[in-house]
Amino acid sequence: MAARTLASCIFCKIVKGDIPSFKLLETELSFSFLDINPLSKGHALIIPKNEVHAEKMHELPDEYIQDAMPIAKKIAIAQGAENYNILQNNGRLAHQEVPHVHFHVIPKPNEEEGLGVGWPAQTLDNAELQKIFEELKGKL
Amino acid sequence: MAARTLASCIFCKIVKGDIPSFKLLETELSFSFLDINPLSKGHALIIPKNEVHAEKMHELPDEYIQDAMPIAKKIAIAQGAENYNILQNNGRLAHQEVPHVHFHVIPKPNEEEGLGVGWPAQTLDNAELQKIFEELKGKL
Repeated sequence: MAARTLASCIFCKIVKGDIPSFKLLETELSFSFLDINPLSKGHALIIPKNEVHAEKMHELPDEYIQDAMPIAKKIAIAQGAENYNILQNNGRLAHQEVPHVHFHVIPKPNEEEGLGVGWPAQTLDNAELQKIFEELKGKL
Repeated sequence: MAARTLASCIFCKIVKGDIPSFKLLETELSFSFLDINPLSKGHALIIPKNEVHAEKMHELPDEYIQDAMPIAKKIAIAQGAENYNILQNNGRLAHQEVPHVHFHVIPKPNEEEGLGVGWPAQTLDNAELQKIFEELKGKL
């Protein structure tokens, strides 16, 4: 079955083989390869070969998400890093560079290499949390 | 079936109900709740109710990973954020705070709130990438 791809999408072109890549694992639903501008040695990407080009994770059918994650696990085991991050960015503000869903597997060998994590944690009181909880729970 | 939990683990205690939480969704394999020190409004966690306490993602059986991610998707849809990050940290150096596998769903409403992402991308030549590729591919 030919996949419906976005002609201008670099990741769709990688899946189709129109752009070469360092391919790691491929399944019926997913394709994984080395990031050529890695944050650390072995930094890899897993992308869905989805028929309908999905930009963000929540647009992706569950079976694609469920196929991608065990590949992330296999790659993490092959990388053999004691410390690593699984990251999936959605939207420019959230640091998504290519508008095609992708999961990063990024070894964190030291402070300098790998993902830099900023953690501006907020302190909320119980009433504020309760309000947020009820609002979110009501939409689930 | 009683789950084998780690007596000292705060997330195991949350799953068991020994510590209260703002529970969002629960399945046979997963439990999700609000982060009480959120990076942004609605910041949520999904954790496996795994029988064998797993600290890092690669130690987790696939069915737990595959159960957790559609919950992350449901929560992202309920949050309704245009920009958001899915993050799963492994090891202290990679910013893992609680040694029980957990997936973050973090809305990114603006520059100040949500996950801070540092991206120290490396530029490698093709020979360097090829070497890393062969080494990693050989372990897959």
